Amino acid sequence: MELKGNERIVDLERNGYCIIQDRERFCFGIDAVLLTGFAAVKKGEKVLDLGTGTGIIPILLEAKTEGMHFTGLEIQEESADMARRSVMLNNIADKIDVVTGDIKEAGEIFGKASFDVVTTNPPYMTENHGLKNPEEPKAIARHEIKCTLEDVVRESAKVLKPGGRFYMVHRPRRLVDIIEIMRKYRIEPKRIRMVHPFSDREANMVLIEGRRGERPMMKVEPPIVVYKEQGVYSDEIHEIYGF
Amino acid sequence: MELKGNERIVDLERNGYCIIQDRERFCFGIDAVLLTGFAAVKKGEKVLDLGTGTGIIPILLEAKTEGMHFTGLEIQEESADMARRSVMLNNIADKIDVVTGDIKEAGEIFGKASFDVVTTNPPYMTENHGLKNPEEPKAIARHEIKCTLEDVVRESAKVLKPGGRFYMVHRPRRLVDIIEIMRKYRIEPKRIRMVHPFSDREANMVLIEGRRGERPMMKVEPPIVVYKEQGVYSDEIHEIYGF
Repeated sequence: MELKGNERIVDLERNGYCIIQDRERFCFGIDAVLLTGFAAVKKGEKVLDLGTGTGIIPILLEAKTEGMHFTGLEIQEESADMARRSVMLNNIADKIDVVTGDIKEAGEIFGKASFDVVTTNPPYMTENHGLKNPEEPKAIARHEIKCTLEDVVRESAKVLKPGGRFYMVHRPRRLVDIIEIMRKYRIEPKRIRMVHPFSDREANMVLIEGRRGERPMMKVEPPIVVYKEQGVYSDEIHEIYGF
Repeated sequence: MELKGNERIVDLERNGYCIIQDRERFCFGIDAVLLTGFAAVKKGEKVLDLGTGTGIIPILLEAKTEGMHFTGLEIQEESADMARRSVMLNNIADKIDVVTGDIKEAGEIFGKASFDVVTTNPPYMTENHGLKNPEEPKAIARHEIKCTLEDVVRESAKVLKPGGRFYMVHRPRRLVDIIEIMRKYRIEPKRIRMVHPFSDREANMVLIEGRRGERPMMKVEPPIVVYKEQGVYSDEIHEIYGF
């Protein structure tokens, strides 16, 4: 496997899998890994990851679950190409497809009611004005430049089967918008986990599950605390990471 | 002070204050006490407690804050009478009024934009069908018989000044409805704390702050964990209770 430019291979410590990363571009974070611990994918299910970047979510979900097939949709061709090469590196090309394309067109690309599960770790930030270079790969991954929260939820509602599950990681500051938009597109929020860096700090991530067309009934699961002390991961984080 | 029937006096362990309770009726719970730890009442502010029951929230807030005046609105005359006698018992009749009346008419009773802060520990349960006796005092306190969540939020929006603060304790299972209804009446949810009985259990209460007419921006504060082990309150609960 040939690496380009500043690329390197990162060991995922799961099934012997690796992933190609590039420091100059957006690297996967704890957010994506926590989402793969939160998302429940059942045997035989078809999964779509919206804005898959370098493919961390489908690769980890393939390792962790008995899902039948995983598709990653990514608008940046260079990231999609890295994801495809990681899939080949791990010999799971029969289980994972990476499609280059726009989240805003997911419904059109994949067709209605075509997936059991949608996962997404979308851009968190709405503030795009003042960005030095909005075409920079990291900016596209972090800011709502190519798609908004509403685009992500609307397209998810299109591609999900009735009762299909939507899993997203996002910032708590957007929680009210997230809930309002999910309801608007009839993906009922059913399950939340807050992620706190320490047990006495504000949450800096929220994991949320919605179900297409289902009735209201929210469960707030135990919080995830990332560090038990400065620099020391909690037992739960070790479990999710698998080391 | 003369007690009626099954009444007893409970020491609040705060300012030497007491409250009259009656086991046959609805007794205050940890929910109300946690709400008085979550609600921020500033010097000179006017506070309304919707559905005050036997007055636990205004009595504790008067003890804990520098608020100028506290009003409790209660539909059950017997509960309101107990609250009034507790206020006299604590010699704070100049700071607390208890009004017998219907939450659904709060806007009419008190007038628009008449309070800085609204607090409420409303009935949690929507399932009223099958209730043996919907006129029983405990049923009225626990079930949405005399008022719904929407009534509470709508009337709060009427009586709050612009920028005024709304504090509610409720069940997480209703969180999506709560957020949707608050937005509908332009009380923007700004701050949430989840309450978990143990650190590894689902939340069973949610504390939420909204501000009338303000812009979206949610903060999810550290969770409150009630018990550090079976039967042993956490340090935070001791702090909120003041013992």
